[in-house]
Amino acid sequence: MKAQKNKSLELRPIGVIRSSIKKRSQAPKQGSEGAPDAWVEVHPFAVRALDGLAAGDEIIILTWLHQARRGTLKVHPRSDPNRRLAGVFATRSPDRPNPIGLHQVTVRKIERSRLQVGPIEAIDGTPVIDIKPVLCGVQQT
Amino acid sequence: MKAQKNKSLELRPIGVIRSSIKKRSQAPKQGSEGAPDAWVEVHPFAVRALDGLAAGDEIIILTWLHQARRGTLKVHPRSDPNRRLAGVFATRSPDRPNPIGLHQVTVRKIERSRLQVGPIEAIDGTPVIDIKPVLCGVQQT
Repeated sequence: MKAQKNKSLELRPIGVIRSSIKKRSQAPKQGSEGAPDAWVEVHPFAVRALDGLAAGDEIIILTWLHQARRGTLKVHPRSDPNRRLAGVFATRSPDRPNPIGLHQVTVRKIERSRLQVGPIEAIDGTPVIDIKPVLCGVQQT
Repeated sequence: MKAQKNKSLELRPIGVIRSSIKKRSQAPKQGSEGAPDAWVEVHPFAVRALDGLAAGDEIIILTWLHQARRGTLKVHPRSDPNRRLAGVFATRSPDRPNPIGLHQVTVRKIERSRLQVGPIEAIDGTPVIDIKPVLCGVQQT
C-alpha cells in the first residue's frame, strides 16, 4: 500500500478536558442535555494557536473519545433497545471507527493556557484534538 | 509517558473523497463559496455503518486534510496579509496541529458504498475519517 505521502494519520492531542464528569456512565448524551461546563487545558506547544479566541465565542471542540469501542458499526440509537439498529454514521454514538467527539460550546473564560467552555458532555481526561470557530451561514444553516 | 490506556490515536480512514477539485489551490475556502458536489467512496469494512442515512439528510463529514502543514500555529485569516495574524484555533485554516476538515453537506444520492454529497471543498483523494448526522438544536443553535 502506498503511504499517504508519508504523512501519518496519527493525532497529536492539543489539550485535555478537565470535567466534573468522571465516568462515561455519568455523561449526558449531548451537551444540551444537562452537561456542565468544563475546562480545556491546552498543552504548552499549542497555546499560541488560541490567539484571537475570546469569552462569548461559539466554538467547536473536537475530542478523541478514548473510552469508545472502535469496532462498533451498528447501534441502537440513544442506546434504546426499542429503536432499530442503525449504522453508527447515522448516529452520534461515541462507538465508531474513529471516535471523534464534536462539541459545539460557548467560551466562558480564557486564562492563559486554559479555556472554560460549556455545556460539554466529554468526561475528565478526554484528549482534545482541535478547536474551530463556528461559521455563521455554514454551521448554522 | 503513560500511554493513553493502550489506545493509539491513529486514525483509520473510512473512505475517500472523489472530487473534480484536484489541487489545494483550486479549492474554495468553504463549501458555501462555490464548491462542487463530490463522492465519498466508503471503504468496504465501514459500509454497514451507513445504514439509516438517506438522500436529503444533512450530515457532517470529517476529513483528514492530508496536504496541510501541521506545524502552523498562526495564520492570516483567509490568507489575507492585511488581516492580523491569528491563532489557527480561531480560524478554519487547514494548516493546524491536527488537520481535520469539518464539512456540513447535504446527501444528494446513495449508491451502495458511495455517497454523493455537497457542496464540499475537499480535494480529490482526501481521506474521510467520520460521518455524523447534524443534530437540530445542537449544531443549529
